[in-house]
Amino acid sequence: MYALLDLVLIDLHECNHERLLDAEEIREAMLNAAKMMGAEVVVHSFHTFKRWGVSGTVTIAESHLAVHTWPEHNFAAITFETCGKGMDHRKAYKYLIDFFGSRNPKVTHQKRGFVETPAKKEISCKQKSV
Amino acid sequence: MYALLDLVLIDLHECNHERLLDAEEIREAMLNAAKMMGAEVVVHSFHTFKRWGVSGTVTIAESHLAVHTWPEHNFAAITFETCGKGMDHRKAYKYLIDFFGSRNPKVTHQKRGFVETPAKKEISCKQKSV
Repeated sequence: MYALLDLVLIDLHECNHERLLDAEEIREAMLNAAKMMGAEVVVHSFHTFKRWGVSGTVTIAESHLAVHTWPEHNFAAITFETCGKGMDHRKAYKYLIDFFGSRNPKVTHQKRGFVETPAKKEISCKQKSV
Repeated sequence: MYALLDLVLIDLHECNHERLLDAEEIREAMLNAAKMMGAEVVVHSFHTFKRWGVSGTVTIAESHLAVHTWPEHNFAAITFETCGKGMDHRKAYKYLIDFFGSRNPKVTHQKRGFVETPAKKEISCKQKSV
């Protein structure tokens, strides 16, 4: 069995409060993280919400990234969902831990989308826009 | 401890191949699913990729939904990430299982974003756009 997707959940506790408020700063950080992991960005969308922080998604050729912040908890939840091999998730989340100034980050790795594939067949999942 | 986020992973195997190809049809289905679960849609973005299917994200006031399809595997991976209580995930994913014609769906539920909260304090996470 082969897993099509890597899922990385990055729960950033005890963040720098100011970093959780500005959608444009967070957009730039998420795009930097996408590049650092080796992803190809397709489109991105970030929003500031009244009182409750920022939400953003980055569609990449290899699936997507997402972020949601809770300034009232000094907390940010980041998700990397990527297909294909060779993505440097660690480089990307280390950068984001630093960006958000999290003093208590929790990172978990999972796999999903288990499919049967022919043995020795090399898998490339990278999407091409039409 | 209180979990800020529900994470529902919906792996749809053995889908109807034709349902995995059209970004506009999939956009409509994902927006229907968002409404069915009781979410408030903020923005959405869907893309068709050459050969490899469709990717889409729906930012909701309660976090986000995402979908990625692999027509070559007759497979779709859907993610619901929502905060707050009272979201009807089951109604939404049952609709999507039916939409994609999946004969082998796998659904898993997780929680993330554990924070300390005052006892008896009612949590509302719904975001308001500014």
